[in-house]
This record gives sequence, C-alpha cells and structure tokens, in this order.
Amino acid sequence: MIIILHPSVTEEQLAEIGGILESRGLGVHLSRGVETTLIGAIGALDEEKAELADQLGSLPYVDRVVPISKPYKVVARAFRPEGTTISVRGVEIGGRRLCVMAGPCTVESAQMLFETARCVRDLGANILRGGAYKPSTSPYSFHGMGEQGLRLLAEARDETGLPIITEVMDPRDVELVGGYCDILQIGTRNMTNITLLREVGAARMPVMLKRGWASTIEEWLQAAEYIASRGNHEIILCERGIRTFETYTRNTFDLNAVPAVKELSHLPLIADPAHGTGRWSLVAAVARGAVAAGADGIMVEVHPTPQTALKDGTQSLTFPSFAKMMDGLRPIAAAVSREC
Amino acid sequence: MIIILHPSVTEEQLAEIGGILESRGLGVHLSRGVETTLIGAIGALDEEKAELADQLGSLPYVDRVVPISKPYKVVARAFRPEGTTISVRGVEIGGRRLCVMAGPCTVESAQMLFETARCVRDLGANILRGGAYKPSTSPYSFHGMGEQGLRLLAEARDETGLPIITEVMDPRDVELVGGYCDILQIGTRNMTNITLLREVGAARMPVMLKRGWASTIEEWLQAAEYIASRGNHEIILCERGIRTFETYTRNTFDLNAVPAVKELSHLPLIADPAHGTGRWSLVAAVARGAVAAGADGIMVEVHPTPQTALKDGTQSLTFPSFAKMMDGLRPIAAAVSREC
Amino acid sequence: MIIILHPSVTEEQLAEIGGILESRGLGVHLSRGVETTLIGAIGALDEEKAELADQLGSLPYVDRVVPISKPYKVVARAFRPEGTTISVRGVEIGGRRLCVMAGPCTVESAQMLFETARCVRDLGANILRGGAYKPSTSPYSFHGMGEQGLRLLAEARDETGLPIITEVMDPRDVELVGGYCDILQIGTRNMTNITLLREVGAARMPVMLKRGWASTIEEWLQAAEYIASRGNHEIILCERGIRTFETYTRNTFDLNAVPAVKELSHLPLIADPAHGTGRWSLVAAVARGAVAAGADGIMVEVHPTPQTALKDGTQSLTFPSFAKMMDGLRPIAAAVSREC
Amino acid sequence: MIIILHPSVTEEQLAEIGGILESRGLGVHLSRGVETTLIGAIGALDEEKAELADQLGSLPYVDRVVPISKPYKVVARAFRPEGTTISVRGVEIGGRRLCVMAGPCTVESAQMLFETARCVRDLGANILRGGAYKPSTSPYSFHGMGEQGLRLLAEARDETGLPIITEVMDPRDVELVGGYCDILQIGTRNMTNITLLREVGAARMPVMLKRGWASTIEEWLQAAEYIASRGNHEIILCERGIRTFETYTRNTFDLNAVPAVKELSHLPLIADPAHGTGRWSLVAAVARGAVAAGADGIMVEVHPTPQTALKDGTQSLTFPSFAKMMDGLRPIAAAVSREC
Repeated sequence: MIIILHPSVTEEQLAEIGGILESRGLGVHLSRGVETTLIGAIGALDEEKAELADQLGSLPYVDRVVPISKPYKVVARAFRPEGTTISVRGVEIGGRRLCVMAGPCTVESAQMLFETARCVRDLGANILRGGAYKPSTSPYSFHGMGEQGLRLLAEARDETGLPIITEVMDPRDVELVGGYCDILQIGTRNMTNITLLREVGAARMPVMLKRGWASTIEEWLQAAEYIASRGNHEIILCERGIRTFETYTRNTFDLNAVPAVKELSHLPLIADPAHGTGRWSLVAAVARGAVAAGADGIMVEVHPTPQTALKDGTQSLTFPSFAKMMDGLRPIAAAVSREC
Repeated sequence: MIIILHPSVTEEQLAEIGGILESRGLGVHLSRGVETTLIGAIGALDEEKAELADQLGSLPYVDRVVPISKPYKVVARAFRPEGTTISVRGVEIGGRRLCVMAGPCTVESAQMLFETARCVRDLGANILRGGAYKPSTSPYSFHGMGEQGLRLLAEARDETGLPIITEVMDPRDVELVGGYCDILQIGTRNMTNITLLREVGAARMPVMLKRGWASTIEEWLQAAEYIASRGNHEIILCERGIRTFETYTRNTFDLNAVPAVKELSHLPLIADPAHGTGRWSLVAAVARGAVAAGADGIMVEVHPTPQTALKDGTQSLTFPSFAKMMDGLRPIAAAVSREC
Repeated sequence: MIIILHPSVTEEQLAEIGGILESRGLGVHLSRGVETTLIGAIGALDEEKAELADQLGSLPYVDRVVPISKPYKVVARAFRPEGTTISVRGVEIGGRRLCVMAGPCTVESAQMLFETARCVRDLGANILRGGAYKPSTSPYSFHGMGEQGLRLLAEARDETGLPIITEVMDPRDVELVGGYCDILQIGTRNMTNITLLREVGAARMPVMLKRGWASTIEEWLQAAEYIASRGNHEIILCERGIRTFETYTRNTFDLNAVPAVKELSHLPLIADPAHGTGRWSLVAAVARGAVAAGADGIMVEVHPTPQTALKDGTQSLTFPSFAKMMDGLRPIAAAVSREC
Repeated sequence: MIIILHPSVTEEQLAEIGGILESRGLGVHLSRGVETTLIGAIGALDEEKAELADQLGSLPYVDRVVPISKPYKVVARAFRPEGTTISVRGVEIGGRRLCVMAGPCTVESAQMLFETARCVRDLGANILRGGAYKPSTSPYSFHGMGEQGLRLLAEARDETGLPIITEVMDPRDVELVGGYCDILQIGTRNMTNITLLREVGAARMPVMLKRGWASTIEEWLQAAEYIASRGNHEIILCERGIRTFETYTRNTFDLNAVPAVKELSHLPLIADPAHGTGRWSLVAAVARGAVAAGADGIMVEVHPTPQTALKDGTQSLTFPSFAKMMDGLRPIAAAVSREC
C-alpha cells in the first residue's frame, strides 16, 4: 500500500510511521518529493491490509492511504483465468448455452406455479425460479408460502425437469431450503448479511448471489469471497440494478458491471432485467442488452396474470411477453455465439 | 390510491380495472379529463396496498399508481404525537439530556476497553458502545471477540455504571447478546435483514436501528415498523450517513433526515458522525450540526490509539479529540435547550 | 394535478385552497376519505403547472402535490408516434442503418485527425466526431484548438465524405461552430445551461443533446423541449452514463434509458459507451448492449495512440480495438434488423 | 503520480512507459514487488497531470494511475491559511458576523420585493437575494423579469441599505447584471458552465458559486479555481444540497461539505437549506445545523405568500417562519462564537 503524507510531515513523524510499519514486519520505501512525501509499504498480509490502511489513515499527518492489491482472491479472474462453469442437474451456467431462469416472483399456488413452469420450459427456459420466502419492505406484505412453497417447487421440477432456484433469507433455513432446491439464492437485501453468506458458504451446492442495490462491484466480489472462503466455490453472480437518483425506473441496471465482472472474476454472471428496471415494458430490451454485453444468462419473472400477482406485478411478464422476449433474445444469443 | 391511466384507455379497459377493484371491495371513483383519466380507489386494507398498487401498475393501459397513505403506522408521529423517551438503566434517550454514546469501534482487550470507558464517562458520555461481533466488507478482516467481548462490556458497565450498546448480527445470537447488553444495535448492513428485524422485534429490550446506507427515510421507518409490529416499541433510530457519488468522505451524513424523522416519527434519533463522514477531522463539526438540527444524541468511536485500532481507525477520535468535541457540543446543546 | 391534504385539514382550509384553484380558473374535484382528503385540479395550463404545484405544496395543510401530465410535449412520443429520422448529408440518424460516430476526443493536429478519420470511415463509421472546444474539470487542462480545429474538421469532411459533429460550449459561438459542422453537440456539463439550449434552439441544424450526468430521463427530455420550443426539432439524444456510487467505472451507462427514451419520445438515441464507462476495456461490450437494446447508433472515441491523447486516453480505442468493436457490433445490429 | 501496473507487466513494457515518462522530463521511480509493480513519476507540471494520468491509464498493462497532488491551487487552504473574508458595502462574508442572505426566490413585483426586503432586514438579514433571471427545468415556466428585476433590486438596496446578490446565467449578461448587483451568483446548473465561469473570473466583483447538484467537493473547488485563475479571488462557495436516491427531500444537504471545505479551502462558505431540503418545514433545522458545523452564513428564500410564489413556493419561508428561524439561529451562532 502507498501512504501519502501531508506536505508538512516532520522527520519525527516519519520515524513514527516507519516504526509502526517495521513493527508489523513490513518493508518501508520512502520517497520524498518537493511537494509530496510518500511511503510504500511492502509485504502486508492480505488479512491485515484493510485494518492497517485504516489505522495509518487516522494519523493526523497522513493525507490518505492507497491500497494496491485487490481485496479478493478466490473469486478473482487470476484464480481461474479460463472461467467457471457450474452444472446443475445437467444444465450448465457459464457454458456455451444461454441460461434462462424464469418463473413467478412468488409461489402463490400449485396451479399457477405448474402452469407457469410448463409455459416457460416450452418457451426455452432451462431453470425454474420461484419464491417461497420473500423479503418485503413492509412488514404487512405477503411473505411467501414457506415450506409448502418449497414442496410445490420440487413438484414442479419433477413435472418439468427444470432445476429450481429459490431464495433463502434465514441462516437457520439453509439446510431446509437447500434440501428442496438446486440453487440457493441470496437476495439483494442480504448481500451484506454476513451471517447468511457464511452459512451458504458451508453448504455444498450452488449459490446465486445478487448484488446489493448500493454495493460496488468490488464489494459484491468480496461478498462472493465470503462464500468462497468457506469452501463453496459454486457461486453465480446476479446483476439486478443499483439505486440511483433516476425515478422513472425502479433501479438502474448496471450494464457496465457485465464486462467489468468478466474482467475481474471467473464466476458466471446472470442479469435480472425485471428488478433492474421495475417496468415490464423495458424488460425485454434490457435482457437483450445484457446478453449482447456478455451475460451468461438472464433471470426474469413471469406470471399468468401480473395484475393479480402477489409480488412484483409491475415487472412480471405475461406468457405472451415472455415468448416475445425469447424471440428477441435468440438472434442476440446467436450473435455472441451462444445457444439459446 | 390513485390510478393514472393512459390517455388512450378504452371503456372496456375501464370496466376491467373497475371490476378488479370492486372484487377487492374497494370504492371506485372515476374522473375522466380531457387529457387524463384517473381512478381513485378507496378503502384498501394497509396490508394489501403495496401489492395492489404493483398489480394494477402491470396493466398495459395504466400509466402509474400513486399511493396516498404512509406505509407505516406504529412508528408514525401520529401514533404518539408527544414523542417517545426510552429509559435504559436510568439514562433517557429522547429526553431533555443529550445522549452521548461513545467507546471503541470494537472491543480489542480488557485494558483498552476499560481505559476508554472511564475516559468517555469522565468526559460526559452516558452510554458505552463497543463491538463484540463486527461485520466487515472482507472475509479476511477481524470480526470481533464474540462472547468474550460481551463479557468485557458487561464488566466495563459494572465498573463505570454506563449502560452498554452492542451490535447483533445473527438472529441466533439475539438472546445471547441481549443477555449481556442494554441496547441491541442493528447495523447498516442489516437494516434490510428481515429475519433479524423480526427476531429483535420479539425481544423485550431497546433496539437501535441504523439506517441502511442506501435506504430512504421511509424505508428506514418501515424497517422500524417490522420491529414494532412484533410488539417491541423501544426503538431508537440512528442516522449514519448514506452512500452518494462524493468520494472525499466515506458517506454523506444526511442532516435533512434529522428534522424529517422528527416530522414523520415519534422515535428518538441518534446521529453517528463517525460513520457519517469516515474522517476523524470532520466528526466534531458534524456532531455539532446534528445536535443543532434536533438529534437526541450522538454516537462516536473513541480509541486510545486510533493508529492501532483493529477497526475504523480513520474515523475514531483520540481521547483529546473526544474531549474537544464534547467542549464544542455543550454550548450547542444549551442553545437547543438540552442538557449535556 | 392531485393535491393530497393532511388528515387534519379543516373546512376553512379546504375553502382557502378551493378559492386559490378557482381564481386560476381550474375545476375542483374534492374527495374526502376516512384517512385522506384529496383535491383533483382540472384544467391548468401547461405553462403554469409546475409553479402551481409548488405554490400549493407550500401550504402547511398540504401533504404533497402529484402532477399527472408529462412536462414535455413536442419531444413526447405522442407528438410523432412513428419516430423521427434526421438526415445529415445523406446519413440518416434514427433510420434503418446503425449510426456510428467515431473520431478523436479532441482535434490535436491535422495529421492525427485525417489519419483517424480515414481509419474510422474505412472500418464503417458514418459520422466523424472531434472536439475543437473542450470542457475540462481543471482550468489548467487543454481546452482545444478552437476555430483552427473546426477548420481541420471541415477539411477532414471534405477528404472522407463523413459529416462532422463537434461540441459548442459558448452561446456566442453557435453561429461560428454551426458554420463549420453538420451537427452541434451539447455536452453533459451544459445540458442544464439554458442560455445555450435556447441558442441552439434558434439554429436551423441538427443538435445532439447529451444527458446531464445527474439528470433524470424526464429532465433530459425537458432540456430537449427547450430546444424544440424554439423551433428546432432536429434533436438527437445521447445517453453517456450517469453518476452513481460505483467507483470501478467513471460513470454508470444507463441501459434502461435506451428503451425508456424510445417509450417516452420520438427522438433518435445515440449511446456513448466511452464516457458511459470511462474504461476502454469495457467500451465494446457496452456498445453491443446498447445496440441490442435499441439504440440508433453509438459514438466512440478513437485515437491512433491513446497514451499520447490530449484528452480521455483512458476511454479511447486504438484503431485495432475499434476494428474489433465494429466486428462485434455487426452481428448484433443484424440481430435487431439494422444495417451496419 | 503513482502508476500501478498489471502483475504480468514485461520488461519491454516497463521500458516503454519509462520512455514516455522521461520524454516528458519526469523522474521515474520503479518499485517491483512480488505481487505488484509500481512507478512513481516525479515532477509533472500541474497543467499536464490530468492528461498524463489519463494517457498512461490507457496502456493495456497499466492497472490504474493514482494522482497525488490536489487539482487546485489558488483556492486551496494552503494558499491563504488564515482564511478569506470578503467585504461587500461594509458587510463581511467569512468574518465574525454570521451572514444571512434572504429574499424572494424571484423578483415578482416592486411591492413584494420591497415588503420582503424590509421584513428580512428588520429580522436580521444583512444581504438581499432575489432572482431576475431564473433557470427552470421546463421551458414553459416563468424565467424572471430580466433587467426590470435588476432595477427593482437596486431600488430595494437603496431603500434598505442591504447589498444585493442575484444570479447571472448568460456570459453576455455579466456586465449588465454586475452593473446592478453587489455579488454575482452562479447557480447549481451552471457550476460546470465553463464559459460562464471564465466570464465572471474576469469580472472585478464578488461571485458566489453554488455547488453543482452532482459535483464532488473537489470538482466544486476546481470550478472555483476556474474563476480564481482569471484573477478574481473574491469567491464565496455555497452548499445547496446534492442529488441522491432519497425522495422525501428534493436534495440532500451535504453537512460534511461544511467542515470539508473549511479543511481544503480558505474561501467563505454559505449554506442554502432551502434548496438543500426543498421543504420549508425542514429549513430552520438545517440552517441551525449548518451554522453549528461552521458555515459562514446562510441563504434562504422568503416570500410574503409562498402559495402564490412564482418560483419555489415549497421551500420558501413566510415572514413568521423566517422570524422563527432567526430566533433559533441566534443561540447557535453565539455557541460557535459568531455574532448574529
């Protein structure tokens, strides 16, 4: 790391900071310029870097500390330059075939789930999504069917052959939810819920980690590193839009994050244009854009009748809209050499 | 709620939406203008409003839906217009005396904790803060001493007489942590962790809820409503800065939120200028500003030697800086008729 | 517009606000519910709506005012549902053929400009970009060659046949700059510079209006309306990224804005992935994404040797990178039925 | 500046970048670590630093470039450590006495202006504000009375003795507006309007520069440097709130910016809580907070009848509200050793 000192730093202060660094076993590289004095500190252990940077930044004669190395290792591109493919019941995520996760926001009943599952499978989806435990901004909203919803999802898998993904919110539920589903989903509200990240890090099954709505790309990768550091390397990232000043859309889908994640990490990346826009009329266009930019797949919400959906009707596609979206995606997938 | 329709809405579509509303038992109030057609829907149950707005918004001939009533009740100012005072071992939060919560970011050892506790008490703090379980962006950082840290906090309370506040991150730890401390703290990363909110909502002790770094004031009040809806009304709010484009400071302390929360809610409000700025040199000024604007107290991080702090050295005050901050706060407190 | 009143509003206050509305010649539609009282005000002139909403919002018994109609007319989709195509020296913007504007950020010399112009034309660009007057965050940076740069651009057009686009920053320069170029560009820093908007609104030539880095989509359309309201309807919109909390990229390219603008307006839309990312390594992917989502074209910065560029080297493509980007764009353009 | 290279950088690439730096006459300081290789470049001229950093960042083997020195000089605290006081017709800005600028958003008529001017003077304001040229988001809104408004302001100064401040939007109007008023105001929409900054930099009278709603503190100081670099050092900064995701308030008043500007610059700072909140009910509290944190004064909008204001009624104070705000400010000013 590089420590940039105030122009007025004294020799005594330089000796003090040098002593701190040496007591940590770090190499010290002083560079005194006319206007600025810098210290390069060489050799800090990764585990200590963030703390050390913060400690040194508290010295009144330190202007700022610039970290050099990336704060994640296992999920970094350099760890596996060829990229990661995750296989779930024969469906590959991060492979040549585009991954399409579709289904209702929330499991509302057996009938609507099975009807939706069959429809999305027939139209080209290869993974079924559906919420059994649902977070909500309001305590008075519907929060899902719980274990009964999980059971219905498993039945829908039996019937359609589609692997299933569903959200887990409580660290105490990881085993239960994992017993039913094929991919555990961590929602945007829980990207910084460290307790939950650790728990799914101990599970031995794929996890899809949604980006926190106000988390930077590097913080998102650090959250993935939490899971990976517990031994679970089957991680899928999901870009679902970030919070900005714009009000016409519910979130701002961060297209830059698609190639940026591919540059920084070897993990597969799914785009969620439903949450990324919050408006059904924009979903298909943003899905095309994400795939064209290199996303390994998309996740969308589909509902037989969005105007009766218990969750997220505004961003849910009807069956005909989903069919139309798939029609638009196919040539784009082909253009980037993907099957779909 | 008000439903604003597309200018081209047809009579059939009006009949359809009217039918949906009536099937829910809602009163329908149609208003056809030259340019716009509106429907006022009267009588929706609070529990159903968010879903209904979202469902109707998914209809292709609906432009947007405008909710009218506030999405929280128990924490709203109207519920207790005179305001709430919470009493913890004889210390009042929300009362006439300014509340000053101070202590190290993290409990690092018995010695540093006791030394800091005595110092902040002698300089005017009336509640001791200290982390035993610490969230971190990186999995490789220090995460606190755990239960041993809780024991030390309890000892520090015994010695100084200061009630203690500490963070709980895991819903399974609420009972354990609550057994040691006087106020449970929910950190910014967990404001949207609904599992945890529900768990502290079932506890019978005060909870301080920090604002999520990218949560609106109304979402923060809804998170408080989660706690309140489980029966726990002893809630303290804590403004700790929000995430913006500014890079000179770590967060942007949202001063507007101080009078806004007082307008919207009856709950007491604490300001956290350490996280709100991320720079020790700005902490005292922002603390003064928050108190002048009506905050019921402040929380700050104090460390004997910030350059060795295991967490958040950059924003921690030394003992002399804390003393100076308190000297600056006293006349401000007096100016707003507070004791300090 | 709808006026939502405080629950405690009195009959006298209702009479007062009714009087205000009637004195403006507006129809008043009162709706008293159990919890809320609303007034629908019918018939306000467009010119007066924003002021009136703001005036009524200042009354202590008014909770908030909800505008109903869009704050722009001439640039709204309804004004010309079939969309607008702008023709510049035989090149169509908004037509079937993808528009590719390419060239150096800044004109630095005759040689580099001509070399770049020939290269981008041969690789498929159909409009030449280049700055003669350049805004900079720092007063000590290079600010362009001025009129000499304009002359070189005109020469490059003569040689390559490519129409030229260049930025105008000073209202006093509109005539001069317009005399040389084919499209006037308003930069992101000047989207809210009303003096300049009016001046180009009086010009009789195409204007490309970049989105302000912190302007909403609707504010951007209102800025276009400024130009249109002066009689100049030849407006091209350019999405160039917005400012968010993300630090890995310089801006966040707002992909949602592409279909949103198409929904709300009839104007053609160009994407600028160079400024939208600020990193050359992400430009090609974001360009593909924008075109897949429906952009009518892209603008990119190309430089023979970015490491010597006087402006924006970080986001400039080399000739081989531009060639590669074009190769990637062609199948995407074909997938959305565009020529390229 | 420090250049951080990719781990895989080759000797040839190091030689190339070394050559680039030496050809600019810069000292090169290479530091090869196990994981990272850095180059310290010593001696770049200020005028060239931003460009050079950007050029080097475009090299494919450069990870990033970290600038070391501040991008402004004349407005930096080090330039005049004791701080700057600006005197306008006997009123000091940045001195011991708190500066209170008050008046209507827009001059609407002689009567309302004189009535307001007398009222605010009698209640303690020492500078009169009022808009003659007003920017608006919509082209159809009221844009001010123009020169007639300036004449009325000058008359109001004659009658009340209060110096006047008013906005200038067009570089061609600087002489005209400056001929009437005592302080030229640059609005938030024009902080990045370089043409206008240069023009007021050539004027020989005080300028108040509002922060752009999405400009960082350092960009704001660079905009001030534009003015200063033309020879005009009489600059007043005005914090007026930034744009964030929060929707309850129109802007987020950035309290951190108050001590941050004092740390970084010697210029006086005024707080604008009216625009910083956009809600009259929050203005007084935020004004108190800003003064407690060290602002040299405040600017507020006052109107005899906000419900008829042609601009910004929502954030305008009535005469009684202004009186109440002043009553609350006086003890705060005293607490920070200011007269008021």
